Order: sequence, then structure tokens, then C-alpha cells
Amino acid sequence: MELTSDQAFQIMQQAVAKAKQLSVPSNIAIMDIAGHMKLFHRMDEAWLGSIDIAIKKARTAMLFRCDSEDVGGFLSSEDRAFVLNNTNGGLVGFGGGMPVMLGTNIIAYIGVSGGSTEQDMEIARAGSRI
Amino acid sequence: MELTSDQAFQIMQQAVAKAKQLSVPSNIAIMDIAGHMKLFHRMDEAWLGSIDIAIKKARTAMLFRCDSEDVGGFLSSEDRAFVLNNTNGGLVGFGGGMPVMLGTNIIAYIGVSGGSTEQDMEIARAGSRI
Amino acid sequence: MELTSDQAFQIMQQAVAKAKQLSVPSNIAIMDIAGHMKLFHRMDEAWLGSIDIAIKKARTAMLFRCDSEDVGGFLSSEDRAFVLNNTNGGLVGFGGGMPVMLGTNIIAYIGVSGGSTEQDMEIARAGSRI
Amino acid sequence: MELTSDQAFQIMQQAVAKAKQLSVPSNIAIMDIAGHMKLFHRMDEAWLGSIDIAIKKARTAMLFRCDSEDVGGFLSSEDRAFVLNNTNGGLVGFGGGMPVMLGTNIIAYIGVSGGSTEQDMEIARAGSRI
Repeated sequence: MELTSDQAFQIMQQAVAKAKQLSVPSNIAIMDIAGHMKLFHRMDEAWLGSIDIAIKKARTAMLFRCDSEDVGGFLSSEDRAFVLNNTNGGLVGFGGGMPVMLGTNIIAYIGVSGGSTEQDMEIARAGSRI
Repeated sequence: MELTSDQAFQIMQQAVAKAKQLSVPSNIAIMDIAGHMKLFHRMDEAWLGSIDIAIKKARTAMLFRCDSEDVGGFLSSEDRAFVLNNTNGGLVGFGGGMPVMLGTNIIAYIGVSGGSTEQDMEIARAGSRI
Repeated sequence: MELTSDQAFQIMQQAVAKAKQLSVPSNIAIMDIAGHMKLFHRMDEAWLGSIDIAIKKARTAMLFRCDSEDVGGFLSSEDRAFVLNNTNGGLVGFGGGMPVMLGTNIIAYIGVSGGSTEQDMEIARAGSRI
Repeated sequence: MELTSDQAFQIMQQAVAKAKQLSVPSNIAIMDIAGHMKLFHRMDEAWLGSIDIAIKKARTAMLFRCDSEDVGGFLSSEDRAFVLNNTNGGLVGFGGGMPVMLGTNIIAYIGVSGGSTEQDMEIARAGSRI
């Protein structure tokens, strides 16, 4: 199922609205299910360092079809999956990357970075269903 | 002068409107004057290969504060600047990347890829003044 | 439409049969329509240098949804699209990369390298319809 | 001793059979002893993120002629080999990469990713002797 621009802007709008409500200037990346960027936005005052983090969170979620913090579970047990984080151009194993659902289908992945992990997750969650 | 989200969305809107008028599905990248991504959008049906081209056009324009095809002038005279194109992570020396003006100030750089060079330039030009 | 392993092995088998018939040891890469590798094979005696060429041919075709030599048309007119070849991690603009059709749908991209351009194209063509 | 296509397909077949028996969709990479890819297969439903992991596991095993988790032993003692993991384009220090034996000779390296480390190792082991 191809992600459309209309869907991507709706996802972005929902996430930005939540970011503004929380007063967290964020970088927000929306990818299709194969990992190709569809829509990216750096909100005013958001950290430049969060551009790459937002993208890598969405990408990490896409690569393993789950929330980015679930990948972190594998990353932390370093005796089991040592330096897994170095694969795929760099994985990010904390919250803020997740699938976007339309009904029961994954239609995109969103990655958010700018606030605390909890805030990033709350903002991403606001865009995770359309 | 810091590029705002409102300005970036206006630039994007102007470029997308022109792309739709020309029926050219495009990738459109808008960077601030330091080269950090502010807003990126891949229109429906746009080539995946144009994501990177759009970004590199905006980046090439930003790096030399001119239109991307002007950098191409330097790239083509290879006895003078041999493999200049390989610097900066890869320059792109054809049209579609240019400054965005607010009055007499550069406030952003835009890069467009998806159609012919002339079409890309026309779409970028539509977003090059706000 | 998700490319299946059964389809990928059938595409590979058709291409390898043609390569053997032509006595051209080849590298053959089969990607899904988003560019993620599905099946790769280096035939006995095939050049090591052709591994990357085969992959980049398939990737070039995928990025622009056409035959790789069609992208070459843009690359050769360097005054129009100078150093386009440097984008996307390196494009390859000669024959041997093309879409794989199932009925009227593109279900994969194939890239072949090992012989002359004409031979590479003939081998790729043998795998371009299932 | 040059790895042949027949041998590579036999190794792949043994690994895929085990992966199906365990119901673990896997990425499986088979390299020759110099580290050049011979055969790669992404099984249906396997994670996209495991493509790179499978390749890096085989490559890590090849680079040090041992099982990938043995390299992990060096990686974990960071006071002794700090950021060794960053060398060679990125090492992967957990199980699933190992030599493939023909009699007493190493004829290839296999890397598997898709399940738990134990499952990856079991699948790789199924292809590690022909």
C-alpha cells in the first residue's frame, strides 16, 4: 500500500499539533514502508542534532517493523547482540520511532526527536494512526 | 535570518503548485542557509532516485550561494577543477537548486528533481521568492 | 506487490540459463521494487568487479523505474545533467538493469554484469518477465 | 579452493531448510574466503534490517577466520580493543556468522540474521558443512 502525500501531511499535522501542545520543538520524519523519505520537517527551534536522530528512529522502526525502543532491547544486551547498533548505517534504540497504522495495515513509519524520550514517543504516537 | 516553518511551508506550497500545474511529480528539499534540512517532500509518483538529487541540488546551491547550474560551469572545465564534483559528499551541477529570496536576503535554498532540467528549474523558481 | 522468493529464484534461473547459453559468467542481482536485495548470485568465473556493477544497474533501474541505459541518456549529456552519476551512491548508465514484469506490473528489478553490454542486456531480458 | 555455485546453492538450501523448520524468515549471505559475495537470499517476511546484519556477520567471520561471536569476545573488552567494532566498515560480534567446511578446509563463510541469536546460529550451522 503506497503512502500518499495527503496521508503523510495528515500524519505530520497530527504530530506537530501534539509537539506544539507539549511545547517541544521537534524533528519529524515520515517514511514509506520501504524506508524512502516521504515528508520531513524540522520545527522552529528544534535541535539540529535531532534531524539525524528522527530519521534514524523512523528507519530503525522500519527495518524491524516495530517500535524503535524494542530494537533497543536487543541493543542493550550487548553480550547477546554486540554492536548490532553499528549495522544498517546506525540504529537508534530508544523511543520515538514507530509504525503508522491505517486500520490494520502499516502504511508508514514515523520518527520524532526533540524532547525527552517520553515526549518524543507521545508526539510520534499522535501521528501513528490515521 | 532564521528560516521559519511558516516560510518553509509557503515555499513548498508554491513549488508543489507549480509541479502539479506542470504534471511533474517532484522531490522538493528546502534547507536553511547553513544547509540543514527544514522541509522535504516527495510527491506521489516521484522517482525514488530524485530524493538524493533534490537534496544535493539544494546543498550545492547552498555551498556556493548560487544556482546549482552555475556550479556546473566550474565542474565542466575539468582541467581547472578536476573532480571538484567529488567534494562535499557529491555536488550536482545542473539546474533545479537555487537560493530562496525574501526581499534582498537569501533565507533558504531549494532543490527540485523529478522532471527535465528546465521543469525542475521552473518548479524551483516558483518557490524561490516569498 | 511483494516479490516472493519463488519468483526471485525463477527470475534468477531464467537469467542464469541464458548466461550459460551465451557462456558469459555473470553477476546477477534481483531487488524488490523499493531497492532491497532479494537474491544475488555470482556465477563461477564471473569478475569480482561485476558484483557492484550488477547491483548498481538494478538499483539505477529501480530508482528511475526504467532500463539502466535510459538513465545513461541523461548522464551522457553532461552539460544538461552534470555529475548526475554521482548521486544516489553512484548510478550506472549502461545496459543490463531493467524492471521485471509479471503481467503489467513491475515486481522486481534485475541487474546483470559480466559480458559485453549487449550480452548483459540479453541475460537481464531473459529474467525480465515471469 | 574456489567456492563453486553448486556448493553455494547447496549451503543455501541447507540453511533455508533449517530456517523453514524453525519458522524463522532469514537473510542468508554466503561469501567466498576472500569475502566476496557469492550468493545472498532474503527469505519472504525476513526483516529488511537483517540484510546488512547477515552480510556483516559473514564478513566478520571471514575477516578473522572464526565464528562471529568469537570476535564479539574481543569487542566486549573495550579497554583492550576500544572501538575495534568500528573497523572494517563495521564488525558484528554476535552469533550467526561462521566458516563453511568441506572436509578440513574452509570453503566459504555464511552469515544468518532473522531470529534470536541462537536461531541464527542454528540456521548458519545447518549450512556450515557440505
